[in-house]
Amino acid sequence: MKVEGNHYRTLWVNHSGAEVLIIDQTQLPHHFEIVTLRSLEDVCHAIVTMQVRGAPLIGASAAYGLAFALQHDASSAYRQEASEKLMATRPTAINLKWALDRVNRQLNSLPEADWAEFAWREAARICEEDVQACKMIGEQGSLILEDIYRKKKTEGPLNILTHCNAGWLATLDWGTALAPIYRARERGIPLHVWVDETRPRNQGASLTAWELMHEGIDHTLICDNTGGHLMQHGMVDLCLVGSDRTTAQGDVCNKIGTYLKALAAQDNNVPFYVALPVSTIDWTLQDGVNDIPIELRDASEITQVQGLCNGALQQVRIAPESTPAANYAFDVTPARLVTGLITEKGLFKAELSDLMRLRQTVQDESDD
Amino acid sequence: MKVEGNHYRTLWVNHSGAEVLIIDQTQLPHHFEIVTLRSLEDVCHAIVTMQVRGAPLIGASAAYGLAFALQHDASSAYRQEASEKLMATRPTAINLKWALDRVNRQLNSLPEADWAEFAWREAARICEEDVQACKMIGEQGSLILEDIYRKKKTEGPLNILTHCNAGWLATLDWGTALAPIYRARERGIPLHVWVDETRPRNQGASLTAWELMHEGIDHTLICDNTGGHLMQHGMVDLCLVGSDRTTAQGDVCNKIGTYLKALAAQDNNVPFYVALPVSTIDWTLQDGVNDIPIELRDASEITQVQGLCNGALQQVRIAPESTPAANYAFDVTPARLVTGLITEKGLFKAELSDLMRLRQTVQDESDD
Repeated sequence: MKVEGNHYRTLWVNHSGAEVLIIDQTQLPHHFEIVTLRSLEDVCHAIVTMQVRGAPLIGASAAYGLAFALQHDASSAYRQEASEKLMATRPTAINLKWALDRVNRQLNSLPEADWAEFAWREAARICEEDVQACKMIGEQGSLILEDIYRKKKTEGPLNILTHCNAGWLATLDWGTALAPIYRARERGIPLHVWVDETRPRNQGASLTAWELMHEGIDHTLICDNTGGHLMQHGMVDLCLVGSDRTTAQGDVCNKIGTYLKALAAQDNNVPFYVALPVSTIDWTLQDGVNDIPIELRDASEITQVQGLCNGALQQVRIAPESTPAANYAFDVTPARLVTGLITEKGLFKAELSDLMRLRQTVQDESDD
Repeated sequence: MKVEGNHYRTLWVNHSGAEVLIIDQTQLPHHFEIVTLRSLEDVCHAIVTMQVRGAPLIGASAAYGLAFALQHDASSAYRQEASEKLMATRPTAINLKWALDRVNRQLNSLPEADWAEFAWREAARICEEDVQACKMIGEQGSLILEDIYRKKKTEGPLNILTHCNAGWLATLDWGTALAPIYRARERGIPLHVWVDETRPRNQGASLTAWELMHEGIDHTLICDNTGGHLMQHGMVDLCLVGSDRTTAQGDVCNKIGTYLKALAAQDNNVPFYVALPVSTIDWTLQDGVNDIPIELRDASEITQVQGLCNGALQQVRIAPESTPAANYAFDVTPARLVTGLITEKGLFKAELSDLMRLRQTVQDESDD
């Protein structure tokens, strides 16, 4: 997508083919900085500090982490160690495991001498496939947006509420939840996006608002507390969010606070859609509330807020110095609250039977 | 309640009887500063800038604003003008109107020469009554807390989630939602409070956390997004919040985001109680969602966050410079989501018939 009119992806390999470049998302929206990754350690650091974040982008980054590792030492022991290091960076997004499993599974049938080269190529394929998947999610989702817009009974644009950032910054390009919005805009549908600021890390205020600004999409920043009030007053036509892990029965793990919006959507008959690539589905789990590990991050992310002050990034403390805080990073929206799952393979219901149909489709394709 | 072990109220008249002193709540939790109010204009400024906030405290402050005005000019025209100026400071909390109506109604039967003195005395009475009402709310509410604690099936303290600040800082003393907590502590019930930070103005992080720290009550600060996750996992035994205006059928207008917590409480069978003095009930309204005016505050309260940096209060910007934001300050929780209303007159159901019984009780008392 666009930054100041120039096309970017969130991650790319430089001309020499030996370095990975990323947009440092911890500096946005205030500074646009490109960071070079040169090692497994660089990749782990980028994921842990959230220079890269968003389930699909974490997965692709991890694949490059493994490629760096195998370039350094193409041994079974080190491959195992590197995979474990990457797996430990963040616990909730399943795409990390999905990407590492995908590369490792194929490496098992190759000689060690070919591992590094294969891993680099496979990482690139994961990136390309993500771009295509997101583009398809955009296509599928834009049909839903158009349908809701056509049936809308009040004046004005289609009002979409989104939580966190599931835009192109969370993927390689296009995004998941924002892809249908970008595609719908191309189809001429008048749009307005309510952007949840998404405490504690403010990905809505700092990333989604920045993305939509650069893409010229009308939007308004709101506090996470606000969506219920807007829905009570008919000011939201649908909610559209991403997912960090979705279970086989359609429970959706996403940024903390998503569940509250899904409850408000249900209470006000507002459709609640989740956009995700199939790689975000964890087929091994059913009960999301009980079985998905929820990342507990540092309390300082709540008590300290980063922003721009006199041209420099600064942290201000908003609570008394000794105040304890608990920073759960994700929550789970039960399938019963989800209107539909928008994937690159089409629209599915958040229920086991429909998702089994999706799984069969994907398996049939990979068998071909 | 206590600050560094010393007893304070949020507002008091100095020895000369001609000045009103308040704790400047915009400086908390970082600086404890006392501000002196000497005129109607000072009072309006204190309410608008939220040096004083919280429905009961706004009401009491407004009464002193009128007293200052009448001291300056005890004419009908100026009384009207002053009342309108005070009414315009903040639109949602009904206690402001309640306090002004109470004073004005009685002034109507007095000669102008007595107005100023009466207004000063009546403002003091409003303050004293608020302290007594909050103390009674604490007493009534602590019985509910004790009951829930006795029936609790899991180990550990009673876990209470609260939103915004409905503590002693929102009233003259004791608080509304926090009064039952302070009283339950005196009764020996083990307690832990989940403190919603309460964006955008962070009253939870800056005021509730500060209050509970000074009172020695165990607490944990969380983002507003977190309550649903906690309730899904059995980590909240009840929600307890205040109200800025409650309708005759029991719809509760309170800080934006309260409605989302009430939805999560319902979805997880967690009791949701609202603590309020009877002065917060607007008997003229039934349908809270449609009829209560919701204050729309400045967008900069969302895009800029105030906190402490290098010992000084600073503002940092968290969104791109041009990002538009919408700052709705309150929302309405429909009565169907409210387990009970804790008032100084006892516990009532959030429904018209039970609240009519409360109204009759109050009228009978004032007829005596």
